[in-house]
Amino acid sequence: MATECLDKKQTIDLRKKFIGPSCKVFFSHDPLKIVRARGQYMYDENGQQYLDCINNVAHVGHSHPTVVRAGTQQMELLNTNSRFLHDNLVLYAERLQATLPDPLSVCYFVNSGSEANDLALRLAWQYTGHRDVITLNNAYHGHVSSLIDISPYKFHQLSDDEHKQSVHVAPSPDVYRGKFRADHPDPALAYSDEVRDIITRAHKRGGKIAAFIAESLQSCGGQVVPPAGYFQKVAAHVRAAGGVVIADEVQVGFGRVGSHFWGFQLQGEDFVPDIVTMGKPIGNGHPMSCVVTTREVAQAFMAAGMEYFNTFGGNPVSCAIGLAVLDVIQNEDLQGNALRVGAHLSRLLGGLKETHPLVGDVRGPGLFVGVELVRDRVKLTPATAEAQEVIYKLKEQHILLSADGPHRNVLKIKPPMCFSREDAERVVEKIHLVI
Amino acid sequence: MATECLDKKQTIDLRKKFIGPSCKVFFSHDPLKIVRARGQYMYDENGQQYLDCINNVAHVGHSHPTVVRAGTQQMELLNTNSRFLHDNLVLYAERLQATLPDPLSVCYFVNSGSEANDLALRLAWQYTGHRDVITLNNAYHGHVSSLIDISPYKFHQLSDDEHKQSVHVAPSPDVYRGKFRADHPDPALAYSDEVRDIITRAHKRGGKIAAFIAESLQSCGGQVVPPAGYFQKVAAHVRAAGGVVIADEVQVGFGRVGSHFWGFQLQGEDFVPDIVTMGKPIGNGHPMSCVVTTREVAQAFMAAGMEYFNTFGGNPVSCAIGLAVLDVIQNEDLQGNALRVGAHLSRLLGGLKETHPLVGDVRGPGLFVGVELVRDRVKLTPATAEAQEVIYKLKEQHILLSADGPHRNVLKIKPPMCFSREDAERVVEKIHLVI
Repeated sequence: MATECLDKKQTIDLRKKFIGPSCKVFFSHDPLKIVRARGQYMYDENGQQYLDCINNVAHVGHSHPTVVRAGTQQMELLNTNSRFLHDNLVLYAERLQATLPDPLSVCYFVNSGSEANDLALRLAWQYTGHRDVITLNNAYHGHVSSLIDISPYKFHQLSDDEHKQSVHVAPSPDVYRGKFRADHPDPALAYSDEVRDIITRAHKRGGKIAAFIAESLQSCGGQVVPPAGYFQKVAAHVRAAGGVVIADEVQVGFGRVGSHFWGFQLQGEDFVPDIVTMGKPIGNGHPMSCVVTTREVAQAFMAAGMEYFNTFGGNPVSCAIGLAVLDVIQNEDLQGNALRVGAHLSRLLGGLKETHPLVGDVRGPGLFVGVELVRDRVKLTPATAEAQEVIYKLKEQHILLSADGPHRNVLKIKPPMCFSREDAERVVEKIHLVI
Repeated sequence: MATECLDKKQTIDLRKKFIGPSCKVFFSHDPLKIVRARGQYMYDENGQQYLDCINNVAHVGHSHPTVVRAGTQQMELLNTNSRFLHDNLVLYAERLQATLPDPLSVCYFVNSGSEANDLALRLAWQYTGHRDVITLNNAYHGHVSSLIDISPYKFHQLSDDEHKQSVHVAPSPDVYRGKFRADHPDPALAYSDEVRDIITRAHKRGGKIAAFIAESLQSCGGQVVPPAGYFQKVAAHVRAAGGVVIADEVQVGFGRVGSHFWGFQLQGEDFVPDIVTMGKPIGNGHPMSCVVTTREVAQAFMAAGMEYFNTFGGNPVSCAIGLAVLDVIQNEDLQGNALRVGAHLSRLLGGLKETHPLVGDVRGPGLFVGVELVRDRVKLTPATAEAQEVIYKLKEQHILLSADGPHRNVLKIKPPMCFSREDAERVVEKIHLVI
């Protein structure tokens, strides 16, 4: 197979002609044509190498041979639906469950983080018999219609009358820019009290809480790290109202946070969500994902009498790939690497903060790091244009980074997990140079 | 890779322990463990061969080497998201578009039929500014929550108060068992008038029609073939009300109907939907799918200002596989095979109908055939238990068939497209024997 058939202009022209214009490219002024990738490196049509700091999907490294081999071998044998028994399905479910606290024991395999979060809502609605959902400000949970409804990151772009009455938005527990900051005596309590108050108001209007959903660490929302203890307190309020807690691990799971396999575990062992959703890194790019919940929730979903069938979900190829990804994370100690390299990276970025007033905050565990750029460290004026400029200038230096958050001023660093100390040093050095 | 690691009982036990109990297996009394497959044949853990008459996903044949090779080679090179330019994406979109009438020119790549149908609704809502959806009775359009809402096949299992006021159910245009039958002078007109009346009633209640959605031929709904001209007449009513027409080709597209590449084309060249959704066969089992619409609808969706991003949708591996599937359909003339073998199969099944009073109706084009079993040819009493028995007895004969439709009395034959004349003869012979 040729790595390239068309020249770049032809590719761009055909894309304009045949691909939905709502589908955007990175670096829209001068998009990249990538033809191959390996580990943490991507290569354009001229063979130019780029250091990939944004691809949290190519989790164990682009085109990892162990993953490719697993997928190939299973494709050659069998790829069919889960209405037939297959060992890959059950062995993978068993392996995945072993990474989670015991109560989270029942798996549903689907094809994307969006399918996972939608199913999580269906489970919550069915189990609780309630309808209302509490979500965090700036949250993004996926592109299907039910998830646009609970994604302020998206629905703030809509007119007011398209907001659902059954969706309640709690403040993002952002201790840098949010309502309660690092100088607050107990931001976890203060932010969870906001959720309690939302529940009280919903009850007054006759609403009943089905679920609280949040990413364990907000990603598109600006790489937000909730204060420890926040989810425990929120869970107490939500469960008291008869609702369940959904931890969205689509962007942050699978060892990225370094100290733990799952982001929600950063909050402490006394926090166990009722439903966990997975996605992006789970198949190293292969379209697959998973919802894990408790036996109790799963039984209630079944008791409704409606079969759940997902044509591609849990097929033997997806499960073989999922197993291979878990193998590589373990065999190459990628979680340990995320912890070590992440700590080194954060230290270096901390140094940048001392040198450059533009760097307002450096946060995030492991290889899930945010660098928030501000024009004024007291007013926290978002340095949105500056962030865009940094991104474009880094691209000229052959480093791929993106900016996100409600003000698009947070540099997101979430590279493949094989990212090295040298890669970290190179990125920080280049950021230093361009700012 | 071992084809089997666990004995069948262990597999069943682990499945009970770790997989959502709403996920059902085929032949629940004695499920099959399939470990490999090739062409139209599947093999269990003892090497027993089964003739697969139900897998419309393994469209060009299980584990087709051309498809496996394309997937493997691209996985080795690059698998990343569509925010980078890539030739596979645009070349595939161009190839797919070439199979469709010209106005259908803009593609959105997603991961499943459910994601495709949900996006189709989002496109319709945004383009029309309306909210109401007309769906057919017994329809199934997918498992995400927005699609359960428009799938009577599913939501009839829910309590009344969970039905959406904005969803209207039109009679299925079933000329065998439906409201207007083959003896009606103009069933296409009569069924389309029902849609017209629904629109009138919706308008009286203040509703505004966003879309009419239907499978080009109903599959789960009982292999229903709408009378020619039905969709044209429906489209006229729906468009006059400001709505769009969505053709769901998830189960029936890609040459299965034999005479045409798409099921909706059976209605004649004067019918062009506004949105077409694809799924199951598109990647021969690889999780991928596509929505194609007009430039006008796509522009309106973009004008809303919300980016559409799908992490896995349109990745280079999915597109390489999609291209390979199109190649195989063409190179092996599988559409022609569906036409020829399908006609032979239908002729043979027609013979069964003359011999066995249980066989009430044989219908469907190409390799999309339904055999409706009835206890009484006048009253049309559904032979539900008999259909189940036939399915189980055929399994003993190593033939895989399923029964569906609202009464679960319609044998569905929708095999891989490499199904041969001999396979057809074998199936009909065995059906003859068991009934």
